[in-house]
Amino acid sequence: MAAPKPKVVIVGAGFGGLSTAVKLSKAPVDITIIDRCNHHLFQPLLYQVATAGLSPADIAWPVRSILRKQANARVILGEVTAIDSTDRVVECDAGLIHYDYLVLATGAQHAYFGNEKWATFAHGLKRIEDATYIRRQILLAFEYAEMEAEQDKRDRYLTFVIVGAGPTGVELAGALIELSRKALAADFRSIDPRQARIILIEAGDQVLPSFPDPLSIFAQKALEKLGVEVLLGTPVTHCDETGVNLGQRRIEASTILWAAGVAASPAGQWLGAECDNVGRIKVNQDLSILGFPDVYAIGDTVSLNGQDGQPLPGIAPVAKQQGRYVAQRIEASVTGKEDPGPFRYRFMGNLATIGRKAAVIDFGFVKLKGWFAWWIWGLAHIYYLIGMRNRLLVAIQWLWSYFTFQSGGRLITEPDNR
Amino acid sequence: MAAPKPKVVIVGAGFGGLSTAVKLSKAPVDITIIDRCNHHLFQPLLYQVATAGLSPADIAWPVRSILRKQANARVILGEVTAIDSTDRVVECDAGLIHYDYLVLATGAQHAYFGNEKWATFAHGLKRIEDATYIRRQILLAFEYAEMEAEQDKRDRYLTFVIVGAGPTGVELAGALIELSRKALAADFRSIDPRQARIILIEAGDQVLPSFPDPLSIFAQKALEKLGVEVLLGTPVTHCDETGVNLGQRRIEASTILWAAGVAASPAGQWLGAECDNVGRIKVNQDLSILGFPDVYAIGDTVSLNGQDGQPLPGIAPVAKQQGRYVAQRIEASVTGKEDPGPFRYRFMGNLATIGRKAAVIDFGFVKLKGWFAWWIWGLAHIYYLIGMRNRLLVAIQWLWSYFTFQSGGRLITEPDNR
Repeated sequence: MAAPKPKVVIVGAGFGGLSTAVKLSKAPVDITIIDRCNHHLFQPLLYQVATAGLSPADIAWPVRSILRKQANARVILGEVTAIDSTDRVVECDAGLIHYDYLVLATGAQHAYFGNEKWATFAHGLKRIEDATYIRRQILLAFEYAEMEAEQDKRDRYLTFVIVGAGPTGVELAGALIELSRKALAADFRSIDPRQARIILIEAGDQVLPSFPDPLSIFAQKALEKLGVEVLLGTPVTHCDETGVNLGQRRIEASTILWAAGVAASPAGQWLGAECDNVGRIKVNQDLSILGFPDVYAIGDTVSLNGQDGQPLPGIAPVAKQQGRYVAQRIEASVTGKEDPGPFRYRFMGNLATIGRKAAVIDFGFVKLKGWFAWWIWGLAHIYYLIGMRNRLLVAIQWLWSYFTFQSGGRLITEPDNR
Repeated sequence: MAAPKPKVVIVGAGFGGLSTAVKLSKAPVDITIIDRCNHHLFQPLLYQVATAGLSPADIAWPVRSILRKQANARVILGEVTAIDSTDRVVECDAGLIHYDYLVLATGAQHAYFGNEKWATFAHGLKRIEDATYIRRQILLAFEYAEMEAEQDKRDRYLTFVIVGAGPTGVELAGALIELSRKALAADFRSIDPRQARIILIEAGDQVLPSFPDPLSIFAQKALEKLGVEVLLGTPVTHCDETGVNLGQRRIEASTILWAAGVAASPAGQWLGAECDNVGRIKVNQDLSILGFPDVYAIGDTVSLNGQDGQPLPGIAPVAKQQGRYVAQRIEASVTGKEDPGPFRYRFMGNLATIGRKAAVIDFGFVKLKGWFAWWIWGLAHIYYLIGMRNRLLVAIQWLWSYFTFQSGGRLITEPDNR
């Protein structure tokens, strides 16, 4: 009888965890991938679900289905609650799972930096449930405005504040302004949805701070041209049910979306590992966790600087490269192959889109902006979607809304409490 | 100044209510259509959302969007709570709405015929939220089975009971057996989803009782060939969390779906109108309500016999024809045009599908069954969907799953309680 194969346990089926699992498909290991959702989510397009452009199933795919032909992998739907690094056991609601190698790819969550009670009023966007919640909130605001007799309340319903001008905030603002100016324009009788105010608020002094200045400036101008009000250097000092305070200034708004900050998952706490100030685990250059040589951490839950000494951004290419790297290391360790050396991030570009006609792309050696960048952005996102079905469905819906200006997923579905 | 136009209020934006509104597009009236959902739902395909074949937005469309170019119609998202027929006012949570003509097109809801507590264990399928609930319940049953060590509990998770063998029950059973036998077949490691039992239970002595006998018999054989266990003449006597009782017999099942009965909406109670034993409003041959000459009722909330003396079935063509008829009557009344005479239902056919390869169609003069009927069924449903976008998306997903046997909407989304 053959000796049992080393057990690799991966927590999280996002870009990082899934890349690790797939890259280990030929390795002589037994893989268990645990996620609390049954689907891998293509997060870069989540804002389009929140703004009624796409359906959840267009950008999500069952993890089991992705790995169904990979015989050395099994999938567990479960939520991890603790890790016993002495006995090498992951504790999750589906039971205890032993590991020889552990990969933590648990991502990030919204953070309100000490103002956690704002979460009630300013919803963030990380999971499918967040997107359908925000979609309902946005569409209901127009419905309530239509039925409201008092002008000031009506104005409040038609004011949408987005806090944070990183890619998520910029993309939400662009999609929301087009929803109000185009798709909803003729739908109402008492209000004119084109009068809706979309206000993008940023504490820093530019939109898309992770992009080169010319692209940031272009993005801001493109947003303003669409009608978005951009407020820079304006930290939010208070959030409540009817609006936000910006120091002395008050903006009345019934919808506040939070795109200002993320914190790491609690994975660092499970281990008692050393973390940075937003909870990201500190890792060695081989992505193993300081003090836990058989535990790796990858993706948004990690704090690591790139070769240039700058922190690596929380984007899909980083997570995917780290996932594949860790898989190589584990395979090398198991088979005695050559060690791949320290992790090196290969910059693949940085993209963000502004509505349906413009995007900015930083490839490092070349910077693109405008409609041509938008087409590259679109093709890149379709290419990276999993499965021909999703590619086709997203492409059709984009082309359809590109030409008709209608958006297809405008459903208000009720919270299902049963 | 022109005299104010007569006010037509339509409650319900299903097949009936929407047909009335659209047919009145050229009439000199002011239309208000009230629905508690923002979307018109193509209910005949709802079972495909419940069984993970389609996304909710593929079969639903915002009512506002459908009517956005119809200047004489406005849409209100609201829930009607009462009607004052003396003052001609509809009371809804969005305010009081005056009418000159009222059309009640409020449909039907699940009914458990005196066993309302069964609703907790045996979910019915009427709204989008029902479909995503059932989808989650079905997919989680497989997940729990995969993680379950005890054989009897595992078997219970893998047993799916459908109560009621009308079109909804038959279509759910066919879709569910194909989900387990094809799409999920290779996804699990501890269980074989192909071992799942799908049991269709019917109190009557045949499946699809509204179809001619040869088609009923064909449908039953087609289901059994796919692997569905069909139990006829077997009333359910008890439902609980772990299964159903059929007299002395007990079936352990963690998933019970209710397709056994519907009752009318409470619209009859709002008026104090005369209703039949399941709450359907009794109407005159012109679809006005007995004792309320300016109030019409159409669709599933109505009790009416056809020209053959048989009760009209609760299907979309009946509701649509009644909606258009009532619109003609109202227009005749307003403009002094010729009265259209009593309502006459024109039988357009009766369709049901069994999995992805067979269907039965009764056109009256010709009866079809098998794969050719399936293609006609598919084309008819795509044709009747609203909008090119939905037609295209549904067609692509059907073709894709026809050839790959995969199903695309396999998302477990969590109840959103916020």
